Amino acid sequence: MAGFNVRSLLVTGANRGIGLELVKQFLEKSNPPEWVFATCRDPEGERAQQLKNLASRHPNLAIVALEATDPASIKAAATRVEEHLKSSGLNLLISNAGIATPSTLESETPEDMSLVYATNVTGPLLVSQAFLPLLKKAAQGSPQPGLSCSKAAIVNMSSEGGSITNPFAWELGHAVSYRCSKAALNMLTKCQSLGYEGDGILSIAVHPGWVQTDMGSTGSHQAPLTVDVSVQGILNVLPTLSKKDNGAFVNWEGKVLPW
Amino acid sequence: MAGFNVRSLLVTGANRGIGLELVKQFLEKSNPPEWVFATCRDPEGERAQQLKNLASRHPNLAIVALEATDPASIKAAATRVEEHLKSSGLNLLISNAGIATPSTLESETPEDMSLVYATNVTGPLLVSQAFLPLLKKAAQGSPQPGLSCSKAAIVNMSSEGGSITNPFAWELGHAVSYRCSKAALNMLTKCQSLGYEGDGILSIAVHPGWVQTDMGSTGSHQAPLTVDVSVQGILNVLPTLSKKDNGAFVNWEGKVLPW
Repeated sequence: MAGFNVRSLLVTGANRGIGLELVKQFLEKSNPPEWVFATCRDPEGERAQQLKNLASRHPNLAIVALEATDPASIKAAATRVEEHLKSSGLNLLISNAGIATPSTLESETPEDMSLVYATNVTGPLLVSQAFLPLLKKAAQGSPQPGLSCSKAAIVNMSSEGGSITNPFAWELGHAVSYRCSKAALNMLTKCQSLGYEGDGILSIAVHPGWVQTDMGSTGSHQAPLTVDVSVQGILNVLPTLSKKDNGAFVNWEGKVLPW
Repeated sequence: MAGFNVRSLLVTGANRGIGLELVKQFLEKSNPPEWVFATCRDPEGERAQQLKNLASRHPNLAIVALEATDPASIKAAATRVEEHLKSSGLNLLISNAGIATPSTLESETPEDMSLVYATNVTGPLLVSQAFLPLLKKAAQGSPQPGLSCSKAAIVNMSSEGGSITNPFAWELGHAVSYRCSKAALNMLTKCQSLGYEGDGILSIAVHPGWVQTDMGSTGSHQAPLTVDVSVQGILNVLPTLSKKDNGAFVNWEGKVLPW
Protein backbone atom coordinates (compact mmCIF):
# COMPACT_ATOMS: atom_id res chain seq x y z
CA MET A 1 0.00 0.00 0.00
CA ALA A 2 2.88 2.37 0.78
CA GLY A 3 3.78 2.78 -2.87
CA PHE A 4 0.17 2.98 -4.01
CA ASN A 5 -0.14 6.58 -5.02
CA VAL A 6 -3.37 7.36 -6.87
CA ARG A 7 -3.55 11.05 -7.68
CA SER A 8 -7.20 11.03 -8.70
CA LEU A 9 -10.06 8.59 -8.66
CA LEU A 10 -13.78 8.50 -9.28
CA VAL A 11 -16.30 6.17 -7.66
CA THR A 12 -19.88 5.83 -8.96
CA GLY A 13 -22.74 4.96 -6.62
CA ALA A 14 -20.66 6.49 -3.84
CA ASN A 15 -23.37 7.61 -1.42
CA ARG A 16 -23.68 4.29 0.41
CA GLY A 17 -22.44 0.74 0.86
CA ILE A 18 -19.22 -0.26 -0.82
CA GLY A 19 -18.98 2.96 -2.85
CA LEU A 20 -19.13 5.17 0.25
CA GLU A 21 -16.59 3.00 2.09
CA LEU A 22 -14.18 3.14 -0.88
CA VAL A 23 -14.36 6.93 -0.79
CA LYS A 24 -13.79 6.99 3.00
CA GLN A 25 -10.83 4.64 2.97
CA PHE A 26 -9.13 6.40 0.05
CA LEU A 27 -9.52 9.74 1.87
CA GLU A 28 -8.07 8.26 5.06
CA LYS A 29 -4.94 6.88 3.37
CA SER A 30 -1.61 8.21 4.66
CA ASN A 31 -1.05 9.52 1.13
CA PRO A 32 -4.59 10.48 0.07
CA PRO A 33 -5.42 11.31 -3.55
CA GLU A 34 -5.36 14.91 -4.72
CA TRP A 35 -8.93 14.40 -5.92
CA VAL A 36 -11.62 11.89 -4.99
CA PHE A 37 -14.74 12.28 -7.13
CA ALA A 38 -17.76 10.65 -5.52
CA THR A 39 -20.75 10.40 -7.81
CA CYS A 40 -24.38 9.69 -6.99
CA ARG A 41 -27.75 10.46 -8.54
CA ASP A 42 -28.73 13.30 -6.27
CA PRO A 43 -25.90 15.05 -4.37
CA GLU A 44 -28.42 17.48 -2.85
CA GLY A 45 -30.69 14.73 -1.53
CA GLU A 46 -30.93 13.19 1.92
CA ARG A 47 -29.21 10.01 0.79
CA ALA A 48 -26.00 11.93 0.05
CA GLN A 49 -25.76 13.28 3.63
CA GLN A 50 -22.84 11.03 4.62
CA LEU A 51 -20.90 12.14 1.55
CA LYS A 52 -21.60 15.78 2.41
CA ASN A 53 -20.32 15.23 5.95
CA LEU A 54 -17.13 13.74 4.52
CA ALA A 55 -16.71 16.62 2.05
CA SER A 56 -16.89 19.15 4.91
CA ARG A 57 -13.76 17.54 6.38
CA HIS A 58 -11.96 16.68 3.13
CA PRO A 59 -11.51 19.49 0.61
CA ASN A 60 -10.10 16.95 -1.88
CA LEU A 61 -13.52 15.26 -2.10
CA ALA A 62 -15.84 16.50 -4.84
CA ILE A 63 -19.41 15.21 -4.99
CA VAL A 64 -20.65 15.04 -8.58
CA ALA A 65 -24.14 14.22 -9.89
CA LEU A 66 -24.15 11.16 -12.15
CA GLU A 67 -27.09 8.98 -13.13
CA ALA A 68 -25.65 5.83 -14.75
CA THR A 69 -28.64 5.29 -17.05
CA ASP A 70 -28.58 8.87 -18.41
CA PRO A 71 -25.91 9.61 -21.06
CA ALA A 72 -26.34 13.38 -20.70
CA SER A 73 -25.78 13.18 -16.95
CA ILE A 74 -22.63 11.09 -17.48
CA LYS A 75 -21.22 13.59 -20.00
CA ALA A 76 -21.95 16.51 -17.69
CA ALA A 77 -20.15 14.68 -14.87
CA ALA A 78 -17.08 14.15 -17.09
CA THR A 79 -17.02 17.86 -17.89
CA ARG A 80 -17.19 18.78 -14.18
CA VAL A 81 -14.41 16.35 -13.29
CA GLU A 82 -12.24 17.72 -16.10
CA GLU A 83 -12.71 21.25 -14.71
CA HIS A 84 -11.42 20.11 -11.31
CA LEU A 85 -8.48 18.16 -12.76
CA LYS A 86 -7.41 21.04 -15.00
CA SER A 87 -4.59 19.62 -17.14
CA SER A 88 -4.27 16.27 -15.29
CA GLY A 89 -5.88 12.98 -16.17
CA LEU A 90 -7.98 10.60 -14.08
CA ASN A 91 -6.06 7.59 -12.73
CA LEU A 92 -8.74 5.31 -11.40
CA LEU A 93 -12.36 4.90 -12.50
CA ILE A 94 -14.38 2.62 -10.20
CA SER A 95 -17.78 1.71 -11.70
CA ASN A 96 -19.51 0.64 -8.53
CA ALA A 97 -23.12 1.78 -9.08
CA GLY A 98 -25.39 -1.22 -9.50
CA ILE A 99 -28.77 -2.63 -8.60
CA ALA A 100 -30.26 -6.02 -7.87
CA THR A 101 -33.88 -7.05 -7.83
CA PRO A 102 -35.14 -10.26 -6.26
CA SER A 103 -36.76 -12.65 -8.71
CA THR A 104 -37.06 -16.25 -9.79
CA LEU A 105 -36.71 -17.72 -13.29
CA GLU A 106 -40.49 -17.71 -13.51
CA SER A 107 -41.16 -14.23 -12.09
CA GLU A 108 -38.42 -12.30 -13.89
CA THR A 109 -39.94 -9.47 -15.98
CA PRO A 110 -38.71 -7.71 -19.14
CA GLU A 111 -38.85 -4.39 -17.27
CA ASP A 112 -36.45 -5.69 -14.59
CA MET A 113 -34.17 -7.32 -17.15
CA SER A 114 -33.94 -4.02 -19.00
CA LEU A 115 -33.43 -1.76 -15.95
CA VAL A 116 -30.82 -3.98 -14.29
CA TYR A 117 -28.85 -4.30 -17.55
CA ALA A 118 -29.02 -0.55 -18.23
CA THR A 119 -27.68 0.20 -14.74
CA ASN A 120 -25.15 -2.61 -14.28
CA VAL A 121 -23.72 -2.96 -17.82
CA THR A 122 -24.66 -0.08 -20.12
CA GLY A 123 -23.93 2.38 -17.28
CA PRO A 124 -20.30 1.26 -16.79
CA LEU A 125 -19.85 1.23 -20.60
CA LEU A 126 -21.10 4.81 -20.97
CA VAL A 127 -19.08 5.99 -17.96
CA SER A 128 -15.90 4.47 -19.42
CA GLN A 129 -16.62 6.10 -22.80
CA ALA A 130 -17.12 9.51 -21.20
CA PHE A 131 -14.02 9.31 -18.98
CA LEU A 132 -11.77 7.62 -21.56
CA PRO A 133 -10.04 10.87 -22.61
CA LEU A 134 -9.14 11.57 -18.97
CA LEU A 135 -7.90 8.01 -18.42
CA LYS A 136 -5.78 8.23 -21.58
CA LYS A 137 -4.38 11.55 -20.41
CA ALA A 138 -3.40 9.97 -17.06
CA ALA A 139 -1.70 7.06 -18.83
CA GLN A 140 0.16 9.37 -21.21
CA GLY A 141 1.28 11.62 -18.37
CA SER A 142 2.56 8.77 -16.22
CA PRO A 143 6.25 7.85 -16.05
CA GLN A 144 5.27 4.30 -14.95
CA PRO A 145 5.79 1.45 -17.43
CA GLY A 146 3.16 -1.28 -17.95
CA LEU A 147 -0.33 -1.16 -16.45
CA SER A 148 -1.43 -0.33 -12.91
CA CYS A 149 -4.25 1.15 -10.86
CA SER A 150 -2.11 4.13 -9.94
CA LYS A 151 -1.40 4.87 -13.63
CA ALA A 152 -4.79 4.42 -15.35
CA ALA A 153 -7.43 1.79 -14.66
CA ILE A 154 -11.08 0.85 -15.01
CA VAL A 155 -12.36 -1.19 -12.06
CA ASN A 156 -15.82 -2.68 -12.59
CA MET A 157 -17.53 -3.89 -9.41
CA SER A 158 -18.84 -7.26 -10.48
CA SER A 159 -20.07 -10.22 -8.44
CA GLU A 160 -19.42 -13.90 -8.03
CA GLY A 161 -23.17 -14.10 -8.82
CA GLY A 162 -22.01 -13.40 -12.39
CA SER A 163 -19.74 -16.45 -12.50
CA ILE A 164 -21.32 -18.92 -14.94
CA THR A 165 -18.98 -21.68 -13.78
CA ASN A 166 -19.97 -21.25 -10.16
CA PRO A 167 -23.45 -19.79 -9.84
CA PHE A 168 -23.03 -18.42 -6.34
CA ALA A 169 -25.63 -19.52 -3.84
CA TRP A 170 -28.34 -20.40 -6.37
CA GLU A 171 -30.45 -21.81 -3.54
CA LEU A 172 -30.58 -18.36 -1.85
CA GLY A 173 -32.10 -16.64 -4.86
CA HIS A 174 -32.22 -16.89 -8.61
CA ALA A 175 -31.84 -13.15 -9.36
CA VAL A 176 -31.61 -13.95 -13.07
CA SER A 177 -31.53 -10.31 -14.20
CA TYR A 178 -28.65 -9.59 -11.77
CA ARG A 179 -26.65 -12.71 -12.66
CA CYS A 180 -27.03 -12.10 -16.41
CA SER A 181 -26.00 -8.47 -15.97
CA LYS A 182 -22.86 -9.37 -14.02
CA ALA A 183 -21.82 -12.04 -16.57
CA ALA A 184 -22.25 -9.34 -19.23
CA LEU A 185 -20.26 -6.86 -17.12
CA ASN A 186 -17.44 -9.41 -16.93
CA MET A 187 -17.52 -9.60 -20.73
CA LEU A 188 -17.48 -5.80 -20.95
CA THR A 189 -14.42 -5.78 -18.68
CA LYS A 190 -12.68 -8.28 -20.97
CA CYS A 191 -13.54 -6.13 -24.01
CA GLN A 192 -12.20 -3.02 -22.26
CA SER A 193 -8.99 -4.88 -21.40
CA LEU A 194 -8.50 -5.79 -25.07
CA GLY A 195 -9.49 -2.39 -26.37
CA TYR A 196 -7.57 -0.16 -23.96
CA GLU A 197 -4.39 -2.09 -23.15
CA GLY A 198 -2.65 -0.26 -25.99
CA ASP A 199 -3.63 3.04 -24.35
CA GLY A 200 -1.93 2.03 -21.09
CA ILE A 201 -5.22 1.44 -19.26
CA LEU A 202 -5.76 -1.59 -17.00
CA SER A 203 -9.28 -3.10 -16.81
CA ILE A 204 -10.41 -5.42 -14.05
CA ALA A 205 -13.62 -6.96 -12.65
CA VAL A 206 -13.76 -7.17 -8.85
CA HIS A 207 -16.06 -9.29 -6.65
CA PRO A 208 -16.26 -7.46 -3.30
CA GLY A 209 -17.46 -10.53 -1.43
CA TRP A 210 -20.92 -11.07 -0.04
CA VAL A 211 -21.12 -7.89 1.95
CA GLN A 212 -23.48 -6.62 4.64
CA THR A 213 -25.14 -3.89 2.56
CA ASP A 214 -28.75 -3.25 1.56
CA MET A 215 -28.02 -5.29 -1.55
CA GLY A 216 -26.03 -8.09 0.08
CA SER A 217 -28.56 -9.04 2.70
CA THR A 218 -31.52 -10.97 1.33
CA GLY A 219 -34.38 -11.94 3.57
CA SER A 220 -33.19 -13.87 6.60
CA HIS A 221 -29.71 -14.52 5.17
CA GLN A 222 -26.97 -12.38 6.63
CA ALA A 223 -23.97 -11.69 4.46
CA PRO A 224 -20.73 -12.79 6.15
CA LEU A 225 -18.48 -9.82 5.33
CA THR A 226 -18.53 -6.27 6.71
CA VAL A 227 -18.21 -3.39 4.24
CA ASP A 228 -15.09 -2.27 6.07
CA VAL A 229 -13.27 -5.61 5.66
CA SER A 230 -14.33 -5.96 2.01
CA VAL A 231 -13.04 -2.50 1.10
CA GLN A 232 -9.82 -2.95 3.09
CA GLY A 233 -9.29 -6.10 1.04
CA ILE A 234 -9.98 -4.31 -2.26
CA LEU A 235 -7.54 -1.53 -1.32
CA ASN A 236 -4.90 -4.17 -0.65
CA VAL A 237 -5.55 -5.90 -3.98
CA LEU A 238 -5.62 -2.88 -6.31
CA PRO A 239 -1.92 -1.96 -5.82
CA THR A 240 -0.85 -5.52 -6.71
CA LEU A 241 -2.55 -5.53 -10.15
CA SER A 242 -0.40 -5.25 -13.27
CA LYS A 243 -0.42 -6.10 -16.97
CA LYS A 244 -0.66 -9.84 -16.26
CA ASP A 245 -4.00 -9.22 -14.48
CA ASN A 246 -5.52 -7.12 -17.28
CA GLY A 247 -9.06 -8.34 -18.02
CA ALA A 248 -9.20 -10.70 -15.02
CA PHE A 249 -11.94 -11.30 -12.46
CA VAL A 250 -10.62 -11.16 -8.88
CA ASN A 251 -12.21 -11.07 -5.45
CA TRP A 252 -11.52 -8.76 -2.49
CA GLU A 253 -8.71 -11.08 -1.41
CA GLY A 254 -7.04 -11.05 -4.82
CA LYS A 255 -8.09 -14.57 -5.74
CA VAL A 256 -8.79 -15.05 -9.46
CA LEU A 257 -12.38 -16.23 -10.01
CA PRO A 258 -13.64 -18.34 -12.92
CA TRP A 259 -15.96 -16.70 -15.46
CA MET B 1 -29.53 -39.91 -35.29
CA ALA B 2 -31.65 -43.03 -35.92
CA GLY B 3 -32.90 -43.10 -32.34
CA PHE B 4 -33.43 -39.33 -32.19
CA ASN B 5 -37.18 -39.04 -32.18
CA VAL B 6 -38.40 -35.52 -31.41
CA ARG B 7 -42.19 -35.42 -31.58
CA SER B 8 -42.45 -31.64 -31.51
CA LEU B 9 -40.11 -28.70 -31.67
CA LEU B 10 -40.20 -24.96 -31.99
CA VAL B 11 -37.56 -22.72 -33.58
CA THR B 12 -37.61 -18.93 -33.16
CA GLY B 13 -36.20 -16.66 -35.86
CA ALA B 14 -36.97 -19.45 -38.33
CA ASN B 15 -37.48 -17.47 -41.54
CA ARG B 16 -33.82 -17.35 -42.55
CA GLY B 17 -30.25 -18.42 -41.81
CA ILE B 18 -29.67 -21.08 -39.19
CA GLY B 19 -33.29 -21.06 -37.99
CA LEU B 20 -34.66 -21.81 -41.47
CA GLU B 21 -32.08 -24.54 -42.05
CA LEU B 22 -32.92 -26.17 -38.69
CA VAL B 23 -36.58 -26.30 -39.74
CA LYS B 24 -35.68 -27.75 -43.17
CA GLN B 25 -33.38 -30.45 -41.84
CA PHE B 26 -35.81 -31.52 -39.10
CA LEU B 27 -38.59 -31.81 -41.72
CA GLU B 28 -36.35 -33.87 -44.00
CA LYS B 29 -35.40 -36.41 -41.32
CA SER B 30 -36.34 -40.02 -42.03
CA ASN B 31 -38.48 -39.82 -38.88
CA PRO B 32 -39.71 -36.20 -38.98
CA PRO B 33 -41.41 -34.60 -35.96
CA GLU B 34 -45.20 -34.64 -35.74
CA TRP B 35 -45.04 -30.87 -35.37
CA VAL B 36 -42.42 -28.31 -36.32
CA PHE B 37 -43.33 -24.80 -35.16
CA ALA B 38 -41.39 -22.15 -37.04
CA THR B 39 -41.75 -18.68 -35.57
CA CYS B 40 -40.91 -15.32 -37.06
CA ARG B 41 -42.04 -11.74 -36.63
CA ASP B 42 -44.26 -11.51 -39.69
CA PRO B 43 -45.43 -14.83 -41.18
CA GLU B 44 -47.40 -12.93 -43.84
CA GLY B 45 -44.45 -10.84 -44.98
CA GLU B 46 -42.09 -11.33 -47.92
CA ARG B 47 -39.27 -12.49 -45.65
CA ALA B 48 -41.29 -15.55 -44.63
CA GLN B 49 -41.72 -16.75 -48.24
CA GLN B 50 -39.26 -19.65 -47.91
CA LEU B 51 -41.09 -20.87 -44.81
CA LYS B 52 -44.40 -20.67 -46.68
CA ASN B 53 -42.98 -22.69 -49.56
CA LEU B 54 -41.86 -25.34 -47.05
CA ALA B 55 -45.26 -25.36 -45.34
CA SER B 56 -47.00 -26.04 -48.66
CA ARG B 57 -45.04 -29.33 -48.88
CA HIS B 58 -45.01 -30.23 -45.17
CA PRO B 59 -48.37 -30.28 -43.37
CA ASN B 60 -46.51 -30.87 -40.08
CA LEU B 61 -44.95 -27.39 -40.31
CA ALA B 62 -46.86 -24.57 -38.61
CA ILE B 63 -45.69 -20.99 -39.04
CA VAL B 64 -46.42 -18.92 -35.93
CA ALA B 65 -46.01 -15.17 -35.38
CA LEU B 66 -43.62 -14.41 -32.52
CA GLU B 67 -41.78 -11.18 -31.80
CA ALA B 68 -39.12 -11.94 -29.18
CA THR B 69 -39.22 -8.47 -27.62
CA ASP B 70 -43.02 -8.45 -27.20
CA PRO B 71 -44.36 -10.46 -24.22
CA ALA B 72 -47.92 -10.41 -25.57
CA SER B 73 -46.79 -11.83 -28.90
CA ILE B 74 -44.88 -14.61 -27.12
CA LYS B 75 -47.89 -15.55 -25.01
CA ALA B 76 -50.15 -15.59 -28.07
CA ALA B 77 -47.66 -17.88 -29.82
CA ALA B 78 -47.67 -20.29 -26.86
CA THR B 79 -51.47 -20.42 -26.98
CA ARG B 80 -51.42 -21.20 -30.72
CA VAL B 81 -48.82 -23.93 -30.29
CA GLU B 82 -50.82 -25.47 -27.45
CA GLU B 83 -53.90 -25.62 -29.71
CA HIS B 84 -51.92 -27.57 -32.31
CA LEU B 85 -50.38 -29.94 -29.76
CA LYS B 86 -53.73 -30.65 -28.08
CA SER B 87 -52.86 -32.77 -25.04
CA SER B 88 -49.16 -33.29 -25.89
CA GLY B 89 -46.22 -31.27 -24.66
CA LEU B 90 -43.39 -29.58 -26.56
CA ASN B 91 -40.13 -31.54 -26.63
CA LEU B 92 -37.61 -29.09 -27.99
CA LEU B 93 -37.52 -25.30 -27.75
CA ILE B 94 -34.77 -23.73 -29.86
CA SER B 95 -34.29 -20.02 -29.08
CA ASN B 96 -32.48 -19.02 -32.23
CA ALA B 97 -33.77 -15.47 -32.88
CA GLY B 98 -30.99 -12.97 -32.34
CA ILE B 99 -29.45 -9.80 -33.68
CA ALA B 100 -26.00 -8.29 -33.94
CA THR B 101 -25.02 -4.72 -34.63
CA PRO B 102 -21.54 -3.64 -35.66
CA SER B 103 -19.86 -1.30 -33.19
CA THR B 104 -16.64 -0.50 -31.39
CA LEU B 105 -16.10 0.10 -27.68
CA GLU B 106 -16.20 3.81 -28.42
CA SER B 107 -19.23 3.87 -30.75
CA GLU B 108 -21.51 1.50 -28.83
CA THR B 109 -24.79 3.27 -27.92
CA PRO B 110 -27.27 2.71 -25.07
CA GLU B 111 -30.01 2.14 -27.65
CA ASP B 112 -28.06 -0.73 -29.26
CA MET B 113 -27.10 -2.20 -25.89
CA SER B 114 -30.75 -2.21 -24.89
CA LEU B 115 -32.18 -3.60 -28.16
CA VAL B 116 -29.58 -6.35 -28.54
CA TYR B 117 -30.07 -7.47 -24.92
CA ALA B 118 -33.87 -7.41 -25.21
CA THR B 119 -33.71 -9.60 -28.33
CA ASN B 120 -30.84 -11.95 -27.45
CA VAL B 121 -31.39 -12.46 -23.70
CA THR B 122 -34.76 -11.21 -22.46
CA GLY B 123 -36.42 -12.77 -25.54
CA PRO B 124 -35.17 -16.32 -24.82
CA LEU B 125 -36.08 -15.86 -21.13
CA LEU B 126 -39.66 -14.81 -21.95
CA VAL B 127 -40.01 -17.56 -24.55
CA SER B 128 -38.88 -20.19 -22.03
CA GLN B 129 -41.30 -18.80 -19.43
CA ALA B 130 -44.21 -18.95 -21.87
CA PHE B 131 -43.44 -22.46 -23.15
CA LEU B 132 -42.42 -23.91 -19.76
CA PRO B 133 -45.82 -25.57 -19.12
CA LEU B 134 -45.57 -27.35 -22.50
CA LEU B 135 -41.98 -28.44 -21.86
CA LYS B 136 -42.95 -29.75 -18.42
CA LYS B 137 -45.87 -31.63 -19.97
CA ALA B 138 -43.50 -33.26 -22.49
CA ALA B 139 -41.09 -34.27 -19.71
CA GLN B 140 -43.90 -35.67 -17.56
CA GLY B 141 -45.37 -37.59 -20.50
CA SER B 142 -42.06 -39.14 -21.52
CA PRO B 143 -41.08 -42.68 -20.54
CA GLN B 144 -37.38 -41.74 -20.97
CA PRO B 145 -35.23 -41.45 -17.83
CA GLY B 146 -32.72 -38.59 -17.35
CA LEU B 147 -32.52 -35.58 -19.61
CA SER B 148 -32.46 -35.42 -23.42
CA CYS B 149 -33.42 -33.27 -26.38
CA SER B 150 -36.05 -35.79 -27.44
CA LYS B 151 -37.68 -35.64 -23.98
CA ALA B 152 -37.70 -31.93 -23.10
CA ALA B 153 -35.01 -29.34 -23.77
CA ILE B 154 -34.22 -25.66 -24.11
CA VAL B 155 -31.52 -24.97 -26.71
CA ASN B 156 -30.23 -21.39 -26.71
CA MET B 157 -28.31 -20.40 -29.81
CA SER B 158 -25.32 -18.63 -28.34
CA SER B 159 -21.96 -17.72 -29.86
CA GLU B 160 -18.29 -18.17 -29.20
CA GLY B 161 -18.34 -14.35 -29.35
CA GLY B 162 -19.90 -14.67 -25.88
CA SER B 163 -16.95 -16.63 -24.47
CA ILE B 164 -15.19 -14.33 -21.99
CA THR B 165 -12.20 -16.67 -21.83
CA ASN B 166 -11.71 -16.63 -25.58
CA PRO B 167 -13.12 -13.46 -27.10
CA PHE B 168 -13.57 -14.79 -30.62
CA ALA B 169 -11.87 -12.77 -33.34
CA TRP B 170 -11.68 -9.47 -31.44
CA GLU B 171 -9.65 -7.99 -34.28
CA LEU B 172 -12.56 -8.52 -36.72
CA GLY B 173 -14.98 -6.44 -34.70
CA HIS B 174 -15.69 -5.43 -31.13
CA ALA B 175 -19.48 -5.88 -31.23
CA VAL B 176 -19.64 -5.17 -27.49
CA SER B 177 -23.46 -5.24 -27.29
CA TYR B 178 -23.51 -8.65 -29.02
CA ARG B 179 -20.69 -10.16 -26.93
CA CYS B 180 -22.20 -8.93 -23.65
CA SER B 181 -25.61 -10.31 -24.68
CA LYS B 182 -24.21 -13.75 -25.50
CA ALA B 183 -22.25 -13.95 -22.23
CA ALA B 184 -25.52 -13.09 -20.48
CA LEU B 185 -27.39 -15.70 -22.56
CA ASN B 186 -24.84 -18.29 -21.42
CA MET B 187 -25.60 -17.30 -17.82
CA LEU B 188 -29.34 -17.56 -18.52
CA THR B 189 -28.76 -21.07 -19.89
CA LYS B 190 -26.88 -22.03 -16.72
CA CYS B 191 -29.74 -20.62 -14.59
CA GLN B 192 -32.31 -22.57 -16.65
CA SER B 193 -30.25 -25.75 -16.22
CA LEU B 194 -30.29 -25.27 -12.44
CA GLY B 195 -33.92 -24.26 -12.28
CA TYR B 196 -35.45 -26.85 -14.60
CA GLU B 197 -33.34 -29.99 -14.11
CA GLY B 198 -35.81 -31.14 -11.46
CA ASP B 199 -38.60 -30.81 -14.03
CA GLY B 200 -36.81 -33.16 -16.43
CA ILE B 201 -35.80 -30.36 -18.82
CA LEU B 202 -32.29 -30.15 -20.34
CA SER B 203 -30.83 -26.67 -21.02
CA ILE B 204 -27.90 -26.08 -23.34
CA ALA B 205 -26.09 -23.19 -25.08
CA VAL B 206 -24.95 -23.94 -28.62
CA HIS B 207 -22.37 -22.09 -30.75
CA PRO B 208 -23.30 -22.84 -34.38
CA GLY B 209 -19.87 -21.91 -35.71
CA TRP B 210 -19.04 -18.84 -37.72
CA VAL B 211 -21.61 -19.35 -40.40
CA GLN B 212 -22.18 -17.78 -43.82
CA THR B 213 -25.37 -15.88 -42.94
CA ASP B 214 -26.27 -12.20 -43.07
CA MET B 215 -25.05 -12.01 -39.47
CA GLY B 216 -21.92 -14.13 -39.85
CA SER B 217 -20.39 -12.22 -42.72
CA THR B 218 -18.93 -8.90 -41.68
CA GLY B 219 -17.43 -6.59 -44.24
CA SER B 220 -14.80 -8.30 -46.35
CA HIS B 221 -14.49 -11.28 -43.99
CA GLN B 222 -16.16 -14.46 -45.21
CA ALA B 223 -17.33 -16.90 -42.56
CA PRO B 224 -15.81 -20.36 -43.08
CA LEU B 225 -18.88 -22.56 -42.47
CA THR B 226 -21.96 -23.09 -44.63
CA VAL B 227 -25.37 -23.02 -42.93
CA ASP B 228 -25.95 -26.56 -44.14
CA VAL B 229 -22.81 -27.98 -42.50
CA SER B 230 -23.40 -26.06 -39.25
CA VAL B 231 -26.97 -27.35 -38.91
CA GLN B 232 -25.99 -30.92 -39.87
CA GLY B 233 -23.46 -30.71 -37.05
CA ILE B 234 -26.03 -29.39 -34.56
CA LEU B 235 -28.46 -32.18 -35.52
CA ASN B 236 -25.72 -34.70 -34.85
CA VAL B 237 -24.88 -33.14 -31.47
CA LEU B 238 -28.39 -32.74 -30.02
CA PRO B 239 -29.12 -36.51 -29.79
CA THR B 240 -25.88 -37.07 -27.84
CA LEU B 241 -26.75 -34.63 -25.03
CA SER B 242 -27.78 -35.99 -21.64
CA LYS B 243 -27.87 -35.01 -17.97
CA LYS B 244 -24.09 -34.66 -17.80
CA ASP B 245 -24.27 -31.90 -20.43
CA ASN B 246 -27.01 -29.93 -18.68
CA GLY B 247 -26.05 -26.24 -18.58
CA ALA B 248 -23.03 -26.66 -20.86
CA PHE B 249 -21.82 -24.55 -23.80
CA VAL B 250 -21.06 -26.70 -26.87
CA ASN B 251 -20.30 -25.97 -30.50
CA TRP B 252 -21.79 -27.51 -33.67
CA GLU B 253 -19.24 -30.31 -33.43
CA GLY B 254 -20.11 -31.15 -29.82
CA LYS B 255 -16.94 -29.64 -28.37
CA VAL B 256 -17.40 -28.04 -24.95
CA LEU B 257 -16.46 -24.35 -25.03
CA PRO B 258 -15.15 -22.29 -22.10
CA TRP B 259 -17.38 -19.57 -20.68
